[in-house]
Amino acid sequence: MSPKLIIGTIVDSNADWSLRIRENHCIIIDDNGTIVMEGPFSSQAVQQWKDKYSVTEVVELDREEFLLPGFIDSHIHASQLPNCGLALDLPLLKWLQTYTFPIETKFADPQYAQDVYSRAVEGTLASGTTGAMYFATIHRDASEILCDIVEEKGQRAMVGKVCMNRNSFNGYQETTQNSLNESKLFIAGVQARKSSLLDPVITPRFVPSCDQELLLGLGDLAKSSDVRIQSHLSETLAEVAWVKELEPTSRDYTDVYRQAGLLTAKTVMAHCVHLSNAELNAMKEAQTGIAHCPNSNCSIRSGNMDVRQIQKRGIKVGLGTDCSAGYSPSMLDAMRGSASVTCLDRVVGQLDEGFQFDAIRIRLNSKAHPTSHLFGHETIEDMVHKFVFLGDDRNVVQVWVNGRIVKDLGLTEH
Amino acid sequence: MSPKLIIGTIVDSNADWSLRIRENHCIIIDDNGTIVMEGPFSSQAVQQWKDKYSVTEVVELDREEFLLPGFIDSHIHASQLPNCGLALDLPLLKWLQTYTFPIETKFADPQYAQDVYSRAVEGTLASGTTGAMYFATIHRDASEILCDIVEEKGQRAMVGKVCMNRNSFNGYQETTQNSLNESKLFIAGVQARKSSLLDPVITPRFVPSCDQELLLGLGDLAKSSDVRIQSHLSETLAEVAWVKELEPTSRDYTDVYRQAGLLTAKTVMAHCVHLSNAELNAMKEAQTGIAHCPNSNCSIRSGNMDVRQIQKRGIKVGLGTDCSAGYSPSMLDAMRGSASVTCLDRVVGQLDEGFQFDAIRIRLNSKAHPTSHLFGHETIEDMVHKFVFLGDDRNVVQVWVNGRIVKDLGLTEH
Ligand SMILES: [Zn+2]
Ligand SMILES: [Zn+2]
Repeated sequence: MSPKLIIGTIVDSNADWSLRIRENHCIIIDDNGTIVMEGPFSSQAVQQWKDKYSVTEVVELDREEFLLPGFIDSHIHASQLPNCGLALDLPLLKWLQTYTFPIETKFADPQYAQDVYSRAVEGTLASGTTGAMYFATIHRDASEILCDIVEEKGQRAMVGKVCMNRNSFNGYQETTQNSLNESKLFIAGVQARKSSLLDPVITPRFVPSCDQELLLGLGDLAKSSDVRIQSHLSETLAEVAWVKELEPTSRDYTDVYRQAGLLTAKTVMAHCVHLSNAELNAMKEAQTGIAHCPNSNCSIRSGNMDVRQIQKRGIKVGLGTDCSAGYSPSMLDAMRGSASVTCLDRVVGQLDEGFQFDAIRIRLNSKAHPTSHLFGHETIEDMVHKFVFLGDDRNVVQVWVNGRIVKDLGLTEH
Repeated sequence: MSPKLIIGTIVDSNADWSLRIRENHCIIIDDNGTIVMEGPFSSQAVQQWKDKYSVTEVVELDREEFLLPGFIDSHIHASQLPNCGLALDLPLLKWLQTYTFPIETKFADPQYAQDVYSRAVEGTLASGTTGAMYFATIHRDASEILCDIVEEKGQRAMVGKVCMNRNSFNGYQETTQNSLNESKLFIAGVQARKSSLLDPVITPRFVPSCDQELLLGLGDLAKSSDVRIQSHLSETLAEVAWVKELEPTSRDYTDVYRQAGLLTAKTVMAHCVHLSNAELNAMKEAQTGIAHCPNSNCSIRSGNMDVRQIQKRGIKVGLGTDCSAGYSPSMLDAMRGSASVTCLDRVVGQLDEGFQFDAIRIRLNSKAHPTSHLFGHETIEDMVHKFVFLGDDRNVVQVWVNGRIVKDLGLTEH
């Protein structure tokens, strides 16, 4: 990886979530994948910069292309890829028993894990997901296989070995001690890799799957290891009612996590569709982020979250696919949101000096894609809209993580 | 084109809209593109059929493939392809003035028409649309170019030259006489082609664009020529209010069309989001069909149509893209609906003896597609769901219209 200079249209978002468009612009990425310089193009300036930064590679985008920060998926179950697009006909709790847990048990087999996780990482990279916060399964070995794969393929990833000690079905469950031990070993193993792109995440599935003893143990582990935490919170009303039954002494669902020390500034809670005012205040106070998964909420009819309302309160919101089907209309606006919710906002999410270069090169009018046409009247904003509404992985012609090319369709010569 | 035998899984829908799945099944298509035989596979039977029908080509689908009836888009503006995915920020009437009409005026240039219409027909065929009911523009020449292209590329198409004599913007409008004359010439020209796949459609844009004199003239033309009719009806509340203002003596919006003789069993009305009880009764009585365009209604916030309620009343409903972005969750269920609404239900929409062979071959696990994976546990229903939720044109590996191959990705050897 050598220092490179990229010239062309660069699109990211301003602090107020509006698009920031820099045309005919330059950025220089050093050999650590850090953006070390950005400024308007001029041939004179380019020559100076090339000398100053010892640039050996120059990439010129053409008029049908632009650069975006890579997408960050703040909630995705890598292990549920085999169920993607299937059987969206059950409410959450039945869905888990019928579809989710049976698939997850298969990850006891390392070969199955290798197959599914390879496809998951390849598929998300192909669509421009440069960073992802993954739920794996309860199996430490399989979770480490996921780590091997993201390392090999070069994705920025936060990986969680799932913890569950109650209410699952036969066989797919741990003892409290086992869950805590395996979590400790997993965290130590991931940290021993000393990868700047990979972090472990403490991952209680959700309160119905984890009793207070386990949650407290995980809270202690979070404190001592200072790693991120992820879980599910208040996805459906039936789940909220069940938690009330399971934990009658807790004030509310959110409070079960809070009491266990799991509601922190490094926590991402998926969904949060049905939170009370008191719960939202607790989230805000703890600076806990929300992974909003609109496609999932819609598919299994969990309810609608009022994103604007929650942002107005000052709670961080990012986007997650929850590994469900299809397209999210606001993936682009969510670039910053998902960066902040996963505590990556000082690192990526913006194409500016000092940030790491996680970016995707978008090409419209690609011959491989039958509908993302340009007709000559389009502004840059129009091109961004065309990509969001009509585009897919075929328009994502190159993907960089930390300055390293991790996808290259080789179509840029068109 | 020679008689061919196809062996494999065949999926279409039953009369009650449930999926009909025939595994290990055979169909034979003769050299007119008609399905002449269908029945369960057995090697003995196959030999007999091959002899009886002089079959020269045998296509064997594998376990990752199935056959579907081709999609019928019952409402699509071929001329609006350049605006696809753009500027979904305005309500209908402003949208027309700001985006739609300026693009449509460009079709005075045959070269522009050739370019856009080629891409429209290629793009829809690539996604499996074997039949489409097209709005073109007011230009007869350009509309005939669209006819040339569908004929050349082999799509089943109903094409309408648009009629408008009021409330458009400068230049993009006709006189009443001109609109009627050009419509007559267009119909005669299309019919003179004697193509079994191509029909002209009488196409008043909608009441705000056509005064009663023009509508009456078009009604007479519909009667004398006995061709199909298409228009827009009751898409937004602002439009309904405007029609009330423009036609104060008419009982309601629907009645303007009815009085002009344009509400017939061969009419397709797009949208119909805000119809009164009386209007729905009039639609039912006239046996007029509705082209339901959920993506469009959602994108420009026109309102929601209660499809089930309307089907319960016995009104025909088909699906249309309205040339807007993205995916329709029920495209598959709508196969029959769109066939009936466009009066094609005795011809296509079902894979049975006596029907014409308009079909698409779906392949999951295609190497070209990064997410439509199979993992081995999937039923045929699961495969259909995976295609609907995760698939795109890359999974549509072959497309036949009237028995003729019009798309072939050549990926079937994988
Ligand atoms: Zn989840
Ligand atoms: Zn329309």
